[in-house]
Amino acid sequence: MKERLVIDMAEFSHINEQGRAKMVDITEKTVTSRTAIARSSILVNEEIYTKIVDQTIGKGDVLSVAQVAGIMAAKQTSTIIPMCHPLPLSGVNIQFDWNVDNDMFELIITVEAKTKGSTGVEMEALTAASVTALTVYDMCKAVDKGMVIDQTYLVEKTGGKSGVYQRLK
Amino acid sequence: MKERLVIDMAEFSHINEQGRAKMVDITEKTVTSRTAIARSSILVNEEIYTKIVDQTIGKGDVLSVAQVAGIMAAKQTSTIIPMCHPLPLSGVNIQFDWNVDNDMFELIITVEAKTKGSTGVEMEALTAASVTALTVYDMCKAVDKGMVIDQTYLVEKTGGKSGVYQRLK
Amino acid sequence: MKERLVIDMAEFSHINEQGRAKMVDITEKTVTSRTAIARSSILVNEEIYTKIVDQTIGKGDVLSVAQVAGIMAAKQTSTIIPMCHPLPLSGVNIQFDWNVDNDMFELIITVEAKTKGSTGVEMEALTAASVTALTVYDMCKAVDKGMVIDQTYLVEKTGGKSGVYQRLK
Amino acid sequence: MKERLVIDMAEFSHINEQGRAKMVDITEKTVTSRTAIARSSILVNEEIYTKIVDQTIGKGDVLSVAQVAGIMAAKQTSTIIPMCHPLPLSGVNIQFDWNVDNDMFELIITVEAKTKGSTGVEMEALTAASVTALTVYDMCKAVDKGMVIDQTYLVEKTGGKSGVYQRLK
Amino acid sequence: MKERLVIDMAEFSHINEQGRAKMVDITEKTVTSRTAIARSSILVNEEIYTKIVDQTIGKGDVLSVAQVAGIMAAKQTSTIIPMCHPLPLSGVNIQFDWNVDNDMFELIITVEAKTKGSTGVEMEALTAASVTALTVYDMCKAVDKGMVIDQTYLVEKTGGKSGVYQRLK
Amino acid sequence: MKERLVIDMAEFSHINEQGRAKMVDITEKTVTSRTAIARSSILVNEEIYTKIVDQTIGKGDVLSVAQVAGIMAAKQTSTIIPMCHPLPLSGVNIQFDWNVDNDMFELIITVEAKTKGSTGVEMEALTAASVTALTVYDMCKAVDKGMVIDQTYLVEKTGGKSGVYQRLK
Repeated sequence: MKERLVIDMAEFSHINEQGRAKMVDITEKTVTSRTAIARSSILVNEEIYTKIVDQTIGKGDVLSVAQVAGIMAAKQTSTIIPMCHPLPLSGVNIQFDWNVDNDMFELIITVEAKTKGSTGVEMEALTAASVTALTVYDMCKAVDKGMVIDQTYLVEKTGGKSGVYQRLK
Repeated sequence: MKERLVIDMAEFSHINEQGRAKMVDITEKTVTSRTAIARSSILVNEEIYTKIVDQTIGKGDVLSVAQVAGIMAAKQTSTIIPMCHPLPLSGVNIQFDWNVDNDMFELIITVEAKTKGSTGVEMEALTAASVTALTVYDMCKAVDKGMVIDQTYLVEKTGGKSGVYQRLK
Repeated sequence: MKERLVIDMAEFSHINEQGRAKMVDITEKTVTSRTAIARSSILVNEEIYTKIVDQTIGKGDVLSVAQVAGIMAAKQTSTIIPMCHPLPLSGVNIQFDWNVDNDMFELIITVEAKTKGSTGVEMEALTAASVTALTVYDMCKAVDKGMVIDQTYLVEKTGGKSGVYQRLK
Repeated sequence: MKERLVIDMAEFSHINEQGRAKMVDITEKTVTSRTAIARSSILVNEEIYTKIVDQTIGKGDVLSVAQVAGIMAAKQTSTIIPMCHPLPLSGVNIQFDWNVDNDMFELIITVEAKTKGSTGVEMEALTAASVTALTVYDMCKAVDKGMVIDQTYLVEKTGGKSGVYQRLK
Repeated sequence: MKERLVIDMAEFSHINEQGRAKMVDITEKTVTSRTAIARSSILVNEEIYTKIVDQTIGKGDVLSVAQVAGIMAAKQTSTIIPMCHPLPLSGVNIQFDWNVDNDMFELIITVEAKTKGSTGVEMEALTAASVTALTVYDMCKAVDKGMVIDQTYLVEKTGGKSGVYQRLK
Repeated sequence: MKERLVIDMAEFSHINEQGRAKMVDITEKTVTSRTAIARSSILVNEEIYTKIVDQTIGKGDVLSVAQVAGIMAAKQTSTIIPMCHPLPLSGVNIQFDWNVDNDMFELIITVEAKTKGSTGVEMEALTAASVTALTVYDMCKAVDKGMVIDQTYLVEKTGGKSGVYQRLK
């Protein structure tokens, strides 16, 4: 006969107290103004570059749609990224720049996110940048599926206990 | 050979700095109590009017369902309206009134939304009013698809820098 | 001592079998091509009319954002309208027309929705039309809160057992 | 000829002012630190118990997935439970314990939720506990559909005007 | 100097091919009519029982709201339960019954869900049952936080390769 | 006096019929089995590499959580990417591989998505890959904010009128 046995999962080697997923407690963190800037880019071919600039992609004005997608994704970050805290996002701005060099047509996406909250907005800025790039891909993929979303990273953050972070370029 | 070329999209005539969609920065706005009252209505025929009042519509008690839909939509406003800020909605109340006049059967929907936040709740009240009306349409459309959702507008708002707004009747 | 008592809620007078909310069973309905066209409009003042046309509203290009909002809302219809069935929406198109008459500046919003499914897309078209109008309101409300979303209604539907519906004008 | 008639729905007997669904106004409630602990459990058979512990369920590591599901559901509480207020959830932690007794294999799920807000987090903790249990069911149902989600209840809450609640055991 | 090294995670002992979470491939499963019936219940005190039946709970008509919540949750199942497939839910019906016995006031919640799809609707029925119970808790918790959501389980399923399942009582 | 004037927006130069955003009509496309494989990766430092492999990151088991996030995002693709069609996703599988080379620690994320539908699953695979990478970033950012999400692209697709696409490496 098996005995009554109450086991805390922490006793299983690899799902210990440390290894278990949790949404970190930020109840006591200070509410401060915080900003984050993230960047992504997408490499397209010349035909797509021309169609984006001329706004002749079949699905519509690519950059307008991508911008709206990025902003809406910023607001959905805590429902997309499991351990992210919900945040009262107070501002999002997305900027596009073209880096055109010989055969390379790179659309650079820069997102600035702001909040007045208890935790940073890095994930909001990064998620917005990724979704903006994915939306550009979606709208242009009928022309060429070979587009590549290039590096996505945090450029800068301010506010909070860890203070300012600035990416070395 | 094409030269290296970095273009700020602001240089494209119609997607300039002003024309670009953004979620306006409200980081520095003051947190105050804010309220908004919005109204919509739906014009139904006599059969639907009778069935709503008698609660004999096939899909269920129309007004109960519509009210829940309106309240849930108020909470979803910032995911439905792209440039809307997420808000800690602190209260929503929906009231129904019938305006019956000869052949006209008008269900008037009045929504009051409240928050203690950095921006107004006009969109929450308006979105709730529209969704309440749409839900009434959905639940009664098997009887008559000719229902019309009549004018939807802001009745009043209080709080915030722009102060009180009262619609002239 | 109270006796054991199992009561079907149907016995309570006003929440009877008919009055209870349910998502109507469409399992046996035929999968056919279905379309729906809905219309809404928003009445704005001359300043807003000019700013929309010139794209100088502070939040961005109003019509681009409103169109994206409408299309995304069409896809969310079954999560917004409680008794609506989820549908594999196969196409959505939103068209804007200005009706300018003396002092009246009316932006007419026409939405066409399509599916190949077991139930109609009327709610998808109507929800998209309402959300498009609400988004225009949101983006222009800093200029004037007195805008009115005018009548919202179904223009036409095709497909399904109930066949073609055409609104009499 | 029918007369003009404006009826407040409150006059209909069973949908009176009290009976109408509303999201209760919490605008004036104090922002304080609040916690809630909820518990649920799921009764599984020996085969499932062994497979969960050995991580050999076909769909993946059951407890990891269930934990993520529970945490994400906590954040979605106000979109799932109609009259729930949106809350800035500041922390969620889910713990698993096995209660093994003869033929009974009970996985106990304990959720602690925290916020600094104007209303309690009981629903967040309870919703997370239920969704965690439902996810375990989903991941193991190919082995046995006879699993039962056992009692789900609030263990404890702190903070807010009503103060501490502690379940008597 | 470290060598170049490509490791498939399957080589890590506990996250092997079997242990990894995945959404099981159902591409080749047959589309058939499927139904599922799930049950949950909530134990309330006499005061709450009376207030639900009399509809005098402060937040509104408890059962109407709970029913809408359950139906909407059924439609959200695949966004709530991580490994669940999205399903074209074709019908949901929720029934309430009171089991009153001496001091026990048990509200029994029975959910029937239907689809014509490639996988079963057990999770939809179970999720709807749980959310209906949670909503009852939410709406009555101002009266008593001691309510308990009792056992939640699958009563019956039909359709699909595994055929009929019927819970033994 | 201004004359009555109905203008189709197509007459405005840059928002013409072609330039307007729309969800392309796929009503007449054939339902076939479709697959897509996408890839992303994230570059981490040695400390994070060690902590992921040892599962000692503070927020929990990174890869388990990231996998769940990717799968859930795949299901949310049509709500995240504005012009994407809703799809009955029939399977998603995410694989992790480490590419370790001197100072470089690259976690390669490969996602395979499947459907039986009228349109491809490229966006589902790409969105899942991006969200998986973003989740890894989120869970490790307390250790180092300098991680970079490297190139994200479509590896292969099958099914549909455009047939097989295979990325040249």
